[in-house]
Amino acid sequence: MARILSGMRPTGKLHLGHLFGAIQNWAKLQEEYESFFMVADWHALSTRYMHPETIKQDIFEVIADYISGGIDPEKCTFYLQSHVPEIAQLHLLVSMITPVSWVERSPTYKDQVSALGQDVATYGFMGYPILMTCDIICVKGNFVPVGQDQLPHLELAREIVRRFNRLYGDVFPEPQPKLTKYALVPGIDGRKMSKSYNNSIYLSDDPNVIWKKIKKTTTDPQKIYKGDPGHPDICPIFYYQKLFNTEEKCNCIDQNCKSGALGCAADKKELYEKMMVFLKPIQEKRKELEDNPQIVYDLLERGGEKARAIVKETLKEVKHVMKLD
Amino acid sequence: MARILSGMRPTGKLHLGHLFGAIQNWAKLQEEYESFFMVADWHALSTRYMHPETIKQDIFEVIADYISGGIDPEKCTFYLQSHVPEIAQLHLLVSMITPVSWVERSPTYKDQVSALGQDVATYGFMGYPILMTCDIICVKGNFVPVGQDQLPHLELAREIVRRFNRLYGDVFPEPQPKLTKYALVPGIDGRKMSKSYNNSIYLSDDPNVIWKKIKKTTTDPQKIYKGDPGHPDICPIFYYQKLFNTEEKCNCIDQNCKSGALGCAADKKELYEKMMVFLKPIQEKRKELEDNPQIVYDLLERGGEKARAIVKETLKEVKHVMKLD
Repeated sequence: MARILSGMRPTGKLHLGHLFGAIQNWAKLQEEYESFFMVADWHALSTRYMHPETIKQDIFEVIADYISGGIDPEKCTFYLQSHVPEIAQLHLLVSMITPVSWVERSPTYKDQVSALGQDVATYGFMGYPILMTCDIICVKGNFVPVGQDQLPHLELAREIVRRFNRLYGDVFPEPQPKLTKYALVPGIDGRKMSKSYNNSIYLSDDPNVIWKKIKKTTTDPQKIYKGDPGHPDICPIFYYQKLFNTEEKCNCIDQNCKSGALGCAADKKELYEKMMVFLKPIQEKRKELEDNPQIVYDLLERGGEKARAIVKETLKEVKHVMKLD
Repeated sequence: MARILSGMRPTGKLHLGHLFGAIQNWAKLQEEYESFFMVADWHALSTRYMHPETIKQDIFEVIADYISGGIDPEKCTFYLQSHVPEIAQLHLLVSMITPVSWVERSPTYKDQVSALGQDVATYGFMGYPILMTCDIICVKGNFVPVGQDQLPHLELAREIVRRFNRLYGDVFPEPQPKLTKYALVPGIDGRKMSKSYNNSIYLSDDPNVIWKKIKKTTTDPQKIYKGDPGHPDICPIFYYQKLFNTEEKCNCIDQNCKSGALGCAADKKELYEKMMVFLKPIQEKRKELEDNPQIVYDLLERGGEKARAIVKETLKEVKHVMKLD
């Protein structure tokens, strides 16, 4: 069965944007592929080395959300990057064959240095496309789900693989992009939902917090009274409705909003109820994990062992073809 | 007891220049310090990744020569870098805090790229001063024997240590240079003895090979006949005599050469005999290791375990102060 690899940085609690943009996608993939999902805690260090103390809790949050959101550690290999120290060895070996010029031209590196300042211009951060490549090839990933914007990174990974295979022999498959259209969920202010915009509904938000956020959510500014004709296509509430309702039901909301039969208050109330029905099992599962964090750590431990066994084999093969064993 | 760390690349068979320039120095240090001597096989990859298949044999040669030349694995920790994979992890962590600009300014990197060509301008090669730093700090080395030309590297290591300690807490001692004047042994053509000049007398050369090399060795070109007055201070043979004889004996040779009482042929014959007396126990020891290479591998295995236990502790401490554990 073809292998798929995806990873995320430990950014802390996840929001609806993550759930519909990534988690649900992974949950589908784990049914179809031999799936490896990884939390990239070493990558997190590259931009957060000044305050690494926050990473640990963020790892827990992100993993609790992934599992309660539908990632099933029985169906995939779900692990923490640093639990597989062989990746660091592979990274060192692959570093030796990767021209500086290949990593220097990475657009993300340049962008981030100008966005976050010279503090992030470290050697480790500069090399993160190589580390990312190793994340993929250490499990011999065949496919990587990526958005259009990630294609240059994957192209670099493919270039490195070709160079390695040409120098030493065919060890790694060239990872193919599995182009994925990520849903762009709007935040409660209408912009893209993002932690840094402070406009997110988190999977783990208390029901009353969610209700407050929904009440505050921007709607069509031209619809002031219930009877005013609304424009659902520019309304985040309508976007959310579409996440939790059938197409039929959505058409109905759409018409009633436009005709003035449905007011924003009632629309929000209905959304809230639907959202909570949807989130309830997720939040219950999460509560269970929060109450017994050891469950999460045990799952990670097990996932790490599974991944490690595979990566050890890869590293052995790498050393063998490089005649280093 | 203060710790000292030194390392060498696996360059293959060692010659008299290595013996008098480095091995004898290490043999002294192992009596005075808790000594860590390391064969840097990962570093070798940085310039030899195109042909890594030659590294393995070179590791054996260099280690057999070190041990037969006086390094006593009972008195020091003698190991292969790649036997301590925790160094790769430490390297990844330290990479995250080291500004690119610090490694870019390394004079060796620039020199080597212009000497060896763009093929060596890899990300791994660029980062080798960081890897070198990790070699030192992973065993918490207090001192590093260096020549004047190596001071910039050590300064970088010290800078990285200061940065790490300031960010996370005092884990590493700032490694101090132990300035060492390395003997510059001339080759048989009068230039510096160096593998690449093809002018070396190897510790493991057969006696008849050594005799041929000594016969070929350049002497004072103005001394054509025995009776001609010689200039021992420009003669490699006289330099070698000084390595194997007492000062008194050397004064005597000096005078007899200058006066014309000693001809080059007799001088060479005498040198050869002295050299072979000196090399005999070294070559016997080496023969023993060649006949039972497993002895070398077992010693390396044991040294690797000793070093690894220490580096594991260091890495644990590093992860602890970085709050990654």
